[in-house]
Amino acid sequence: MTDSWAAFGVDLHIEPVGTGLRNGLMNALREAVRTGRLAPGTRLPSSRTLAADLGVARNTVADAYAELVAEGWLTARQGSGTRVARRAAAPGPVARGARARPVRRPVHSLLPGSPDLSSFPRAEWLKAARRALAAAPDTAFGYDDPQGRIELRTALADYLARARGVYANPERLVICSGFVHGLALIGTVLRRRGVRAAAVESYGLDIHRNLLAEAGLRTPCVPVDALGAATGTLRGMPGVGAVLLTPAHQFPTGVPLHPDRRAEAVDWARSSGGLVLEDDYDGEFRYDRQPVGALQGLDPERVVHLGTASKSLAPGLRLGWMVLPEALVEEVCAAKGGFDRMTGAPDQLTLAEFIASGAYDRHVRAVRLRYRRRRDQLVAALAARAPGFRVSGIAAGLHAVLELPDGTEGPVVQAAAWQGLALERLSRFRHPDAGPGRDGLVIGYGTPSESGWAGALDALCRVLPEDGA
Amino acid sequence: MTDSWAAFGVDLHIEPVGTGLRNGLMNALREAVRTGRLAPGTRLPSSRTLAADLGVARNTVADAYAELVAEGWLTARQGSGTRVARRAAAPGPVARGARARPVRRPVHSLLPGSPDLSSFPRAEWLKAARRALAAAPDTAFGYDDPQGRIELRTALADYLARARGVYANPERLVICSGFVHGLALIGTVLRRRGVRAAAVESYGLDIHRNLLAEAGLRTPCVPVDALGAATGTLRGMPGVGAVLLTPAHQFPTGVPLHPDRRAEAVDWARSSGGLVLEDDYDGEFRYDRQPVGALQGLDPERVVHLGTASKSLAPGLRLGWMVLPEALVEEVCAAKGGFDRMTGAPDQLTLAEFIASGAYDRHVRAVRLRYRRRRDQLVAALAARAPGFRVSGIAAGLHAVLELPDGTEGPVVQAAAWQGLALERLSRFRHPDAGPGRDGLVIGYGTPSESGWAGALDALCRVLPEDGA
Repeated sequence: MTDSWAAFGVDLHIEPVGTGLRNGLMNALREAVRTGRLAPGTRLPSSRTLAADLGVARNTVADAYAELVAEGWLTARQGSGTRVARRAAAPGPVARGARARPVRRPVHSLLPGSPDLSSFPRAEWLKAARRALAAAPDTAFGYDDPQGRIELRTALADYLARARGVYANPERLVICSGFVHGLALIGTVLRRRGVRAAAVESYGLDIHRNLLAEAGLRTPCVPVDALGAATGTLRGMPGVGAVLLTPAHQFPTGVPLHPDRRAEAVDWARSSGGLVLEDDYDGEFRYDRQPVGALQGLDPERVVHLGTASKSLAPGLRLGWMVLPEALVEEVCAAKGGFDRMTGAPDQLTLAEFIASGAYDRHVRAVRLRYRRRRDQLVAALAARAPGFRVSGIAAGLHAVLELPDGTEGPVVQAAAWQGLALERLSRFRHPDAGPGRDGLVIGYGTPSESGWAGALDALCRVLPEDGA
Repeated sequence: MTDSWAAFGVDLHIEPVGTGLRNGLMNALREAVRTGRLAPGTRLPSSRTLAADLGVARNTVADAYAELVAEGWLTARQGSGTRVARRAAAPGPVARGARARPVRRPVHSLLPGSPDLSSFPRAEWLKAARRALAAAPDTAFGYDDPQGRIELRTALADYLARARGVYANPERLVICSGFVHGLALIGTVLRRRGVRAAAVESYGLDIHRNLLAEAGLRTPCVPVDALGAATGTLRGMPGVGAVLLTPAHQFPTGVPLHPDRRAEAVDWARSSGGLVLEDDYDGEFRYDRQPVGALQGLDPERVVHLGTASKSLAPGLRLGWMVLPEALVEEVCAAKGGFDRMTGAPDQLTLAEFIASGAYDRHVRAVRLRYRRRRDQLVAALAARAPGFRVSGIAAGLHAVLELPDGTEGPVVQAAAWQGLALERLSRFRHPDAGPGRDGLVIGYGTPSESGWAGALDALCRVLPEDGA
């Protein structure tokens, strides 16, 4: 970044492009910004200076600047002159509507799906990295088994058996770069096996449905009620070869799957030859009693257990795992393509050491306490501010569901956005075939940093409608 | 791993499965090995002890053991008793024919495609990791832009412009987990754009052809001669919307693409609306003069530049990059699926710091000297041992091509395998449509560790046929 005109003067002395001096100058400036020759934030010379330099009328330059400000290429502010806009150098993001960030970033976020990123244990992670890199064989840095590093599979098999009741051994484990990657692989395998449909819960993430659909599968829904997914309905669903469930803590409603429903799911899989896909996205975070053991333990040959480090450590690690029926390991590795589109060896080795050394258990215990305290504060604040609104799904996880009076969901989220608070509506997670449901919010109380949590909670209380009691 | 019988005794006291004591015992043992309850290397009790324990005739146990040894589940050796075979516990690898390792690991490998893994700069990498993790914002650990970490894209844009003459800026860069991942994404984008065929060089890697084929593209070939790929033939190839080239150092023949051919490739792309995919797999390693600048610099809107850290650092990092025409950035990110199936943030941040701090340049310079010395030793040894055999492709990269007398390629590779030396034949890289070619070896002199290099070179000289001069 430079404030001097000389640094890009040469580039502007090109032939004006198009007709007229003003247009030519505008085109040259646009091009310089677009290609990055003029970096975001760069201060342009005053219109007087540039006009003199180019030998044109000052108004010509001033008009070109004003037009480019209007187009968003430049910004003009009293006292700081005319500068290249911060976003203008990014041809990608600007053009990509769906990925462009809102102009105003929210001050607070209670969106679900993320842990507190400020809690990532950087120092402990580095210690584990040092030990892991010292101990790794040279071959760890080569082209590797698409199943994933053996060190990580071994550490995870032990941890999952101990902490989640998973029937695991390293040979059943395949490392992937997160849940979405794992689900995409399973979807591919199912389709190759001739499966036509994979059932999903009537509340869940659209990106998961879309992934299965991309693999060529229909995604009919199993209703979710107060006992979790009504897995008894699977028997009546034609062509369904798999069902995606969140047994430990239904996402987003927060119900644990009832023991009868767990049994029904496994019975259905056994009798139909189907597969249960167990999304254990936040199984470590249960506050009021022992975690519910993994469904996979009931039948390791019929249940695929999927987990990640995204909630327990950080999504940015891109580390997830699948514990597979033996018969599927080969096919899943084949779907990966034989070559390893996956997380790098240093991060895999570091997580292995992080788990094996006990740092993972310590970290999970520490953040569990912190999230539990937030959960308690959320429940208390809502009880005080809006005693008539039901809060549910709070026994576990990093989010809670707050029911709202009918018709208020949209306005509350909109009002919150105006106040700089990002909230997610419950209806966002409803399956298209699920029919109408209650209004509500899915409150991700794990998302803020420790320092931002109190402010986020205050902001939430301020935007809630009058009590519906 | 345990040597005691008690550790798995309980598991064997299950009901014999199938008919007969011997079969029942065999099934139980197979199951215990398959599920990992009996770890590889575990010593089994003597047939006498087990027979007494089970109350069966000793011969029944001895027969079952012998059969399982024959099937490969167990090994029996004088003095060390009967043990679980090292490979038997791996139901995956055993079943996966293509991925199963040879029973006897070669002592030396001169297979191409890998750098010396022992040269991975662990200490420097850790230093960079420490600085990178200290400086990273919390958001680095969250769900991130599928384009890749901005720190890495910024460092790479600078490096690639400086060292490889690439017209790069962070907004054109997309991080991927290696070349194969990048090529798969481009293949998907091409297919979505309606492209029917992507040309490849008549010598190259079959996995690259297969990837393009998986994306739904035909892969006709452009002949490779002494000037590199004959890109002038592209004009006569119907339906071809892209061509995959290795301009800096043709893989595996080692020719740099002639300037006229470079121009022809870009001219073809401009006039046909096609794309050139530039695989810059070892562009940093040129020994006898300055590296050939990237083809991409000739027309950044018509050439996709693909590179990785796999040769310069280690394949295990799973870090690659694409420098894209602006118009493609959005589509490539969409092909990634919006969610980031990619390398973890710590490894991305560490590579960014590794490059920005100058450690990458220092490392490349250091290993370049080492590989150059090996190249010189290889050429000298071959000149002494087999002066009549032509060695080519030696100006750059980590491999050389040694021409062999007709009909000797297969026998040499076979003889080498018997001697514990892994070699790759030239014909392995020939396109199915390319017609017959010369016999030869592609010698990956970068592959051995420093300590293993001299032995590998000796082993190579020993297995060469009598001089064809």
